[in-house]
Parts: sequence; structure tokens; C-alpha cells
Amino acid sequence: MDTQPDRQEFYSRIAGAGLAPLWEVMKNLITKEPKSAAVPYIWRYETVRPFVLEAGGIITAKEAERRVLILENPGLPGQSRITNTLYAGLQLILPGEVAPAHRHSQSALRFVVEGSGAYTAVDGEKTVMRPGDFVITPSWTWHDHGNESAEPMVWLDGLDIPIVGFLDASFAEGHSDDMQMLSRPAGDSHARFGEGLLPVGFERRSPASPVFNYPYERTRAALETLRRTQEWDPCNGLHMRYVNPLDGGWAMPTIGTSIQLLPKGFSTAPYRATDGTVFCCTEGRGKTHVFGPGGKLETLEWGPRDIFVVPSWNWRRHEASEDAVLFAFSDRPVQEKLGLWREARGNA
Amino acid sequence: MDTQPDRQEFYSRIAGAGLAPLWEVMKNLITKEPKSAAVPYIWRYETVRPFVLEAGGIITAKEAERRVLILENPGLPGQSRITNTLYAGLQLILPGEVAPAHRHSQSALRFVVEGSGAYTAVDGEKTVMRPGDFVITPSWTWHDHGNESAEPMVWLDGLDIPIVGFLDASFAEGHSDDMQMLSRPAGDSHARFGEGLLPVGFERRSPASPVFNYPYERTRAALETLRRTQEWDPCNGLHMRYVNPLDGGWAMPTIGTSIQLLPKGFSTAPYRATDGTVFCCTEGRGKTHVFGPGGKLETLEWGPRDIFVVPSWNWRRHEASEDAVLFAFSDRPVQEKLGLWREARGNA
Amino acid sequence: MDTQPDRQEFYSRIAGAGLAPLWEVMKNLITKEPKSAAVPYIWRYETVRPFVLEAGGIITAKEAERRVLILENPGLPGQSRITNTLYAGLQLILPGEVAPAHRHSQSALRFVVEGSGAYTAVDGEKTVMRPGDFVITPSWTWHDHGNESAEPMVWLDGLDIPIVGFLDASFAEGHSDDMQMLSRPAGDSHARFGEGLLPVGFERRSPASPVFNYPYERTRAALETLRRTQEWDPCNGLHMRYVNPLDGGWAMPTIGTSIQLLPKGFSTAPYRATDGTVFCCTEGRGKTHVFGPGGKLETLEWGPRDIFVVPSWNWRRHEASEDAVLFAFSDRPVQEKLGLWREARGNA
Amino acid sequence: MDTQPDRQEFYSRIAGAGLAPLWEVMKNLITKEPKSAAVPYIWRYETVRPFVLEAGGIITAKEAERRVLILENPGLPGQSRITNTLYAGLQLILPGEVAPAHRHSQSALRFVVEGSGAYTAVDGEKTVMRPGDFVITPSWTWHDHGNESAEPMVWLDGLDIPIVGFLDASFAEGHSDDMQMLSRPAGDSHARFGEGLLPVGFERRSPASPVFNYPYERTRAALETLRRTQEWDPCNGLHMRYVNPLDGGWAMPTIGTSIQLLPKGFSTAPYRATDGTVFCCTEGRGKTHVFGPGGKLETLEWGPRDIFVVPSWNWRRHEASEDAVLFAFSDRPVQEKLGLWREARGNA
Repeated sequence: MDTQPDRQEFYSRIAGAGLAPLWEVMKNLITKEPKSAAVPYIWRYETVRPFVLEAGGIITAKEAERRVLILENPGLPGQSRITNTLYAGLQLILPGEVAPAHRHSQSALRFVVEGSGAYTAVDGEKTVMRPGDFVITPSWTWHDHGNESAEPMVWLDGLDIPIVGFLDASFAEGHSDDMQMLSRPAGDSHARFGEGLLPVGFERRSPASPVFNYPYERTRAALETLRRTQEWDPCNGLHMRYVNPLDGGWAMPTIGTSIQLLPKGFSTAPYRATDGTVFCCTEGRGKTHVFGPGGKLETLEWGPRDIFVVPSWNWRRHEASEDAVLFAFSDRPVQEKLGLWREARGNA
Repeated sequence: MDTQPDRQEFYSRIAGAGLAPLWEVMKNLITKEPKSAAVPYIWRYETVRPFVLEAGGIITAKEAERRVLILENPGLPGQSRITNTLYAGLQLILPGEVAPAHRHSQSALRFVVEGSGAYTAVDGEKTVMRPGDFVITPSWTWHDHGNESAEPMVWLDGLDIPIVGFLDASFAEGHSDDMQMLSRPAGDSHARFGEGLLPVGFERRSPASPVFNYPYERTRAALETLRRTQEWDPCNGLHMRYVNPLDGGWAMPTIGTSIQLLPKGFSTAPYRATDGTVFCCTEGRGKTHVFGPGGKLETLEWGPRDIFVVPSWNWRRHEASEDAVLFAFSDRPVQEKLGLWREARGNA
Repeated sequence: MDTQPDRQEFYSRIAGAGLAPLWEVMKNLITKEPKSAAVPYIWRYETVRPFVLEAGGIITAKEAERRVLILENPGLPGQSRITNTLYAGLQLILPGEVAPAHRHSQSALRFVVEGSGAYTAVDGEKTVMRPGDFVITPSWTWHDHGNESAEPMVWLDGLDIPIVGFLDASFAEGHSDDMQMLSRPAGDSHARFGEGLLPVGFERRSPASPVFNYPYERTRAALETLRRTQEWDPCNGLHMRYVNPLDGGWAMPTIGTSIQLLPKGFSTAPYRATDGTVFCCTEGRGKTHVFGPGGKLETLEWGPRDIFVVPSWNWRRHEASEDAVLFAFSDRPVQEKLGLWREARGNA
Repeated sequence: MDTQPDRQEFYSRIAGAGLAPLWEVMKNLITKEPKSAAVPYIWRYETVRPFVLEAGGIITAKEAERRVLILENPGLPGQSRITNTLYAGLQLILPGEVAPAHRHSQSALRFVVEGSGAYTAVDGEKTVMRPGDFVITPSWTWHDHGNESAEPMVWLDGLDIPIVGFLDASFAEGHSDDMQMLSRPAGDSHARFGEGLLPVGFERRSPASPVFNYPYERTRAALETLRRTQEWDPCNGLHMRYVNPLDGGWAMPTIGTSIQLLPKGFSTAPYRATDGTVFCCTEGRGKTHVFGPGGKLETLEWGPRDIFVVPSWNWRRHEASEDAVLFAFSDRPVQEKLGLWREARGNA
């Protein structure tokens, strides 16, 4: 911006009074369309797995509190973010380890990538996790993890850490014990809230889903039943979101999660939305073409356990070379609640 | 009421102008507490079953349109009601029969009492019914029933016929075909709405649950998981309500349905509420003591398949001599929406 | 219905077991469209006013508890109803009288027809009433009325008495004093809830509006501002509903109230809806043509203070010979909450 | 943090794969309580007014598009923010000027500080503004401002610019004309939505309030009526929030606004909340003591037109030396929707 000298002098003078000229920065603050600093990127599991396992020798789960490698977006270096608003990481629990109990304002999701038999305990109930299981630890719930199996377990963590930080609203507390006491049998929350029933007189106290494990077995079977009607969304295939049975809304108030089935040979129409999205492939293979406002086309080739990110308002197109299932998460619930979410669909 | 002669003369005079004195009737219109004309009553299945089967020889399902014996409350003779606001009946479908497709403003529930293998088709999807299954046919949905098994099938119908009639809001239409075309595979609505998932972008058009079959197998298993925590409500044992996964509310806007487990030997504390309630025993045996405002104690002894009714604001106390499961329905959703529902709990 | 003898014998036999055949009554229970027993009717104020005043000599307000002449629909004799679900009456308070404090489950509206300066006190706050003011006394709120002016006061009462009775949910209680204690200054609830503000931290405890007086002065001025845009609904002119500022819904959960302006010479298109509706003219003159399912056309000619009723699903058409304002109430909120409300519009 | 050399070497190696160790940064990402980078600060109107007027000679409203001096928090230099999530500025419109029509995803509030007679036009309706008036321009509504009076007008702007930027969801568009066409008379939205009425059949399309001007005259009168009950909140005096009449929620989905009256001599108890808050004094004088997590006590002395900010989770205590009225805004609606808002109250 070519600013006259007397303007500069004025700007210097007012700075001391906590003032600054809007007109010099307005175009950058209020942009014609989203210009995310995040970039498209893929973490191939075969590449990152050795690092995750190596971390197991570098630090214990107990010392680390959470032994996680952050999936950091190369466009946001040093910021511990995968999109502008979300954090993601790969967490490793070795056989016999415990990640000690704590709670915090931040909401978390776990999506199991490798291993079976480790558990997450949330608010007095333990759930054993298997690949493809989607588990939540809502804001301010006590949670700890442990691995009672004989193999390492790795899962994708997704948290709203940047959101809570941006809002200056972070609280955290450690539990006096590494493992919380269990007060309810396994499966209790599912029986109580996830079978089309609710306790008479139940009073809700949290915006998050009271069901904290959405097992892949059920999710996958539902997709298989639904594919028979062949109602493929041109941009997203067969696309379902995980819901809170108390209100039909998203499972957590800050992070939206979904699962989609793309049949072999399906190539989607272009699509973009304002919620930068993290994908994790659970089955099958394919490619995602991403075309951002910057103008460069990126093609991300993915297979099982790979994780990739498409930033806000980047066009994307999926192609499945095999029947493929993609789990995804984004900040869409936040944008919807604030009246800011937008999407656009292109022609196939 | 001792009314002076000149008052009576005044009343006669104003009657022609469409006027009447409030003060002569106010105490009956606005009572200090509910005084239902309905009475407690039980329909033992062994008593009514022969009549239901005999009806099979009296009229065909096709001629009757719906071959149902109304469970009429003896306190409301000739009114086709089981409580002041609800209708109930026992419907019989013989092997090979079809109850032809129609739709109406009235919402209906089916609760299977005897037989397996008959079906209900709702909005293009067919569901096969088994004892204890709870099936809904929401307002203005096309529905037909058929029996492709080799045995008679009997279910309890519950409808809001008196409510819709009271509101002067009844519409009905017959289908051009006896059986509607099927457009979705069996299990579609359960996979789509009942597994903790919802289609992304789904737009709701009805206040009723999009899941139309709540199989007893799942309900019963949920009760069995939950009983391990032993959180018995003093008045209702382990008491769960059937919910709409879109909002956590009742499965239908006019009729509330619930299921409760009373363990062997459990005797509840006294309870009353303003929603007159119809019970159907699915398992076990017990008694219900009912004590109405009229002041007479009734004891209803029930076993499997028996149906009984407790009117509004009557005290009731259940005793289970075996592990017992009771299905129940009432107009509680209506009263809650209008801010009128009340309950009271006594001491055990 | 021509029923064979053996059927009749069967019906007699099953009656003793609390059973009745559905197929003999189904067509009357589930009608193809609403067939209200209520009829169109008008109460001309010049006709009924003398009776209302005469009632003042027949019984005191205190003895009567509420000295009201019921507006009874001639189609529903002896039932104290103006439509199938609602009660209406004209209440008279003479100078110096008090209608003593009580509360009940029934919700009430007052719409002032004649006189100025009487008051209604609701939950510790008194409001002085003037013609055209719409005042509510929600379910279970203490309320009393008094007249501190020098002239008689008459208002239209509208209550959900039949609804509460139908639901077996009536509770009532008299206050120990004729007049309740006042705890808040006049205008408090309006300042607190009706000026685009709400107290920070306010917790709602009732489904009804916390604003209990909607003064005609403000309502009328709003209509006058809005008429400038000339957006006339073909069937209802300029049609506004009174709302609860806590949720934008109706002012009470069981009774919907609205006000409409019909400019001089305006003739509406035909309209019908499932909510039988009571109208009270506040200004102007006109006619309403009503054409019911019974097939007879009725023309109701109205002027200021006249009250008339159009039953459910009757076609109606208004014609205003002067600028006219009509206040109206019906059970539309109930029907909307239950998913039963329907309307139809004809061509002008 | 004392990290072993081999850990550092590991961190370098994984950085190339888009990975980083959580355990090195976790304590800063998930803090035990909020640690806002924003600081308490006051902009005294007598200090900033000359700069605002000087800006009038530096650039025209048209060239600037919006001639605003940003109130930039000294703890967040160069970030155009007054709290971590909100933007504020002082906008000047000189007689005869127009700030041209545009629209953007960002929601804005205007709170008039000086001058009378300038206007804001929103979605086809113009409103003339006076000191203390609170005006909103919701997300994606066309809006322009002009000054048809003979004196300069200054108002406080509050926008959610940082929120929309953080979410990568900014869209903006200029209007083809400097001034949009007017399609509705002044006062239309108030008559339509702000008088306890709503158009029958109105369908909501935006989460923001359809009333866009909350005149100080009405707000101030409401406060004066309410003070008679003397229900002073120990921490906030008489504290009211501006609401959306469609749902009783905040006037805008991203910014919460309130007004509070502190009577002369009132000294509040300590209070803190997670929403950093901007205050603007409209009447009276007083002090606010702020005690942040950093541990330093700041005392801000304020009078009419002064603007000050209290960051998230800083304790604050107000003292009024005269009857004082404070307008305030924060991101509380966002935090409430996400389940993150917390407050704490101390003893007086």
C-alpha cells in the first residue's frame, strides 16, 4: 500500500494511544473469500509409523502424559495445528502402558488406526477399542487410556486445542490416580443412550453425546445396508455423520465427524466448503485432487491408515480405485452454530 | 346447587343468545384435581384371545380394513377409548391376509403380542415383526400389514384417535393398491437413522421418529446391560423411553412409549401422574395396586400378554413376583408440550 | 351399517370383556376430513351487553368467583365450549368489585371489550387494562381482577378448559386472600422482558410468555407502521401473532392469538384451517362468509366488540367495509406441536 | 525444558514428515486456566477523540471505505484485536459523507458515542442513530452509513473479524451503488419484530435478530423501571442483555451485548469469566479494578464515552461514584454454544 508520509506520521502518533488505521489492513482482515494459510498434505502411514514406534523408545507414556506425534500442517509451522482451528496427532500406547487420567476443556476424538485391545476410560466407564472405532472424550470428562493387549496401539487424536486457545478458555486438571475408578460396566453408555432408548427423567448436562464409542462394526454394517439404495451424493458418495442421540446434532459441539463410502470406480464432482477437513482412510485406495485458491493442483494418493488434510475453501475431488471408506473431521459444527458455514458444488 | 327461581329464568332467557352462566358449572370445569371418567381395568390375554380369533371368522381383514377389537374402558362406554385421550385395540392378521394400505392424521403404534413373521410396511419399507417389537406408523404415512407366516399374528394397536377427533383434525385416504410399492430394503431406516449416524444434509419433515421398528431383541439386551448398575427408580424400576434419534424426544409427538424392568420381588413406591397409562406385560408376572380419586383400591394381577390401564392421577404400585418387563404408552408427550404434565411420588 | 345377526350377537358377547368391533365405527373415528360439531355463530355486542349487565344484578363477582356469561357454541349445547377445544366468555367487573385470587392449570386470555381502569394482577404485578389490551394469565399463576374505575368493565375471556379437561389434567387452588400481595411495580414485566432485553442469567420456568400485557396502543401503532409496505396476505390481510419474547413462539402453549388489519374495501381469498377460530372485532365493520363441510353458507356481519366463531375446516372469506381490526384466538399452537395443523387457501 | 540431545535429533528428523512431539508443548497448549495475551486497557474519549477527528482530514470515508481507528489491545500489537477474538474501532462519519454499501461474513455492532442524525441502512431499511443506540449489521447483510446532520458522528464498532478469520470463513462483496435502495419505511423492522408481535407465517433465514436498532431511549427507560425492584446482582448490578425476539438468544450469533446499571455508590463483588469484555460508559463515572492472572492490579477510571477492556479470566470489580450505565460486548455467545463459557464470583 502506498501511503503518504503524513499518514505514516499520524499512524505512529496514534499507536501510543492504542489506535491503528483500519483502512491500511481492511482488505486483509475482511477477504473476498477464505485464504487459508493451511496447505493440503498427506501423512502416509508407512512413512510415519516408524517414527511413532521410535517415539515409544524416546519417552514413556507416563512421562509424556500423552505420547503423541503432532500432525503439523506445513503451512502453519510451529503452531501444532493440522487446520487453522484443529489439532491432530498420532498417539501410541505400548502393551502394559497407561496414559494417566486427566481432564480439560478441550474435546477430543480418537479414531483407531492400528491394534486392538487398548482401552479408553471416560467418566467411570471403560471401552475396548478396535480399528475404525470412533471414541470421544468430551470437554471436562476424566479420561485415561491403557493397553492390556500384547501389541502396540496407535490412534488418530483430533482435538479443538486451537479453538479453546483462541477463545482464552482452557482449563485442565490432573487426576490424583493414574487410572480413574470404574463405576459402570462396559457397554453401559451404549445400552443407556445408543439403542433407541433413553432413561425416563434423564437430564442432560453436556452438549456432547453421552455415547462415547461408535464401533466400526456397526458403522460399517450400516454403510453396507445403505449402499443398496445407491443414493450416491455426487460430491461425497454415501456420506453419514456421527450424531448425538440426545438431539441429532454432531457428537461433539466443536468437532464434526463423518464417514463416507466411495464405491470402486466412483469419481466425485468438485466440492469445497469453509471447514478445512482431516481425512483418515480405513479401507480401500484412491486419490484426492485438491485445488486451492493459490492455484496449484495437488494430488494426494491414499490407502488404508493414511491421513490427509484439505484446507478451507479448496476444491477437492475424490476418486476411488477400490471400495473406499474415509473417516473425516472438521470444525463444521462451530461454523454452523455461528452461521458462517458455506459449501459449493461443481459439475462432475 | 340451590339456585333462585329468577336466576333460572335468566338462564333460559340468555340461552337463546348462545349464553350460559359460568358460575353454575365452574367447579366441574375447573376441578381441584383430575377426576378421570376412565377406570382401572385389565384385559387378560387368555380371556380376550378366543374373541380375537373368533373375529377372524366373523369378518375378513380386507372387509374390515382393520380387523381390530377395541379395548374399551368400561368407564367410557361407547367411546372407543382406553383412556380419555387414547384408543387401543387388538389386531388380528391371519396367514395370507393383507390389511390394505391407507394413511391418516392419526399416529399409531403396534406392539406385537403373539406370532412372528407378519410385516408392517411404512413409506416404502417393510419390517417383519416379532413378539415385543415396537413399530410405529406416524401421522400421514402410508402403511399396510400382511402375514406371510403360517400362524395368526396379534398385536396391540395404540392410536391417538380421540386426540385427533377432539382437535377436529382428522384426514384419511385409501391407497389405490392394497399393498404399497417397496422402495427401500428392509433395515434401511434402522441403518440410516438408528446406528448413531444420520445422512449428511438430511432434512427433517416430520415430528415422528424416522426409525419405525424398535426390535425387542435390542431393547431387551439394553435392559439386561443396564440392570447391572442396579439403579432402580423407587416408583418405576429400570425405566427407559423409546426415542426419536433426531431430537431425543418421544418416538411420536402424541403418544409416549416406554419399557420398564422390575426385578423379581421388587415392590415399587406409590406413584401417580396426569397421563393415564396403558401397560402390556411382555415377560414375568406381578400385580398392580391402583387407588383412584374415587377411593376404591383395585388390584390387577398380570402375566405375559396381559394389557391393563391406570387412569390419570390414580395412585399405582407395582409388585413383581418374577423378573417382569412392562411396555407402556400414554399421552405424556402432549401434556409435556402443553406444560400440563404432573407426577407425584409416595413413600415406599 | 347393515350388520348380520351373528355379528350383533358377537358384539354383545365381547362387550362384557371390555371389547368392541372397530370396523363398525372406524369411518366415524377416522374421517376423511374434519367434521366439526361446532357451527359458525356471532355474538353481537349490542345483543349480549344487556345480559352481561343484567348478570351484574343477579350475582356478585365474589359469589360467582368469576361472573362470566359463557359464549356457548349452539352446535355444542351444554358443553361450555365455543369451539371443540376452547372456552370463551364475557366477564363483567363492576366498579369496586374484586374477582378473588386463585390459580389453575387452565391458561386464560383476557381481551378488553369495554371500560378502562380495571386491573388484572398476575404473579405479584398489577396491570391496568384498556380496550383492545390483550392480557394473559398463564397456567398455575395466581391472578385476581378488580375494578377501581367508575364504570363497568367487560372483557372477553378465552380459556383452554376443554383441553385441560380432555387431558384429565385440571388442578385448581384458591388464594387465602381475595387480593394477592403485589411484589413488583406496574410495568415491571414489560421492562424486563418486552423491550428487546432479558435479564442476564434469567432461567425460564414456564412455557408461557413472561410479558403478560400486550397493550393495544403498541399493537395498533405497529400495524399502522407495517401497512405502509402494503404486503397484504390474500387470505388474512396484515396478520401478526402475539409472541413470547423468550422463544418467538405463541404467547401461551395452548392458545394462539393474533391480530389482523383489513383495509377498507379489502376482500380476502377463501381460507380454511384445522383450528376453529374465535374473532373479536376491535375497529371497523365487515362481513365474514363461512362455508362449512355441511354445505350451508353463513354470512356473519360484524362491527366493533362483536365476537364470532369459525369452526375447523370451514372455508371463510372476510370483507371489510371500513378499515377493520380483528383479534383472534384458536388452538393452533396445540395442533402445530402435535404435527396436526393444516391450512388451505382458495383463489380470490 | 531440559531435553536430551537424542530427543532433539529425533525432533529434527520427524519435522520433515510434518510431525512434532506433543509432550514438548502440551503444557502451553492445554493450560490449567486461561492465560490471555490481551491486557486491561482504557481508551479515554478525551484522548482519542482528537485523533478520530484528525483522521477525518487524513482520508475520506469513501477512500477509506470505513474510516475507523482500530482500538488495538496493547497486548496484541499489530493484530487489530481488542480481545483475542474481537475487533473494535471508532468510526467517524462527517456531515454529508457516505460509507459505501457492502456486505461481508463478519457481523458488526454499532454503539453511538457522539452525534445524532447519521444513519445506518440495513437490508433496505434506514435507521437514524442517536447516542446510546445499539445497531446491528448481521452477517452478509448489505449496509451503508451516511451523515445527513450538521455535526460529526462517532460510534464504536464491534466486529467478529478475528473469529471469522480464525475459521477461514471470510467472504466480502461491494455493492454496485454507494447507497442501497430503500424498500421499507423507517421503523418497519421494529414494528414487525420488536413489539411483541411477529408476522404469521414468517420464516427465519438468519441466526441474527431481525430488529436491527435497539434505541437507547427504550433501553434506558426499561432500566429505570427495573431499578425500582432493587434486585442488584452483587457482581453486575442491574444487568440486561439485548436479545433476538425470535428465540430469546443473543442479538447476534458471535457477539453478545449487554447493558448494566450501577447505582451511585455501588461497589460490586469480584467477578471473572472466560469472555474478554469490552465496556463503553454511556452515563456516570466510576472505576474498574482488574486483577489478571499475571498478578498486577490495574485500576481503570472511566466516565462518559470511555471504552475499556477486561481480558478473559481477569478478576474485575466495578465501583460507581455516580449512577452509571455500561454497555458491554464479548464473545460469550460463541463460548456458550461450544460449551466452553465459565464464570466465577468472589465475595464482596
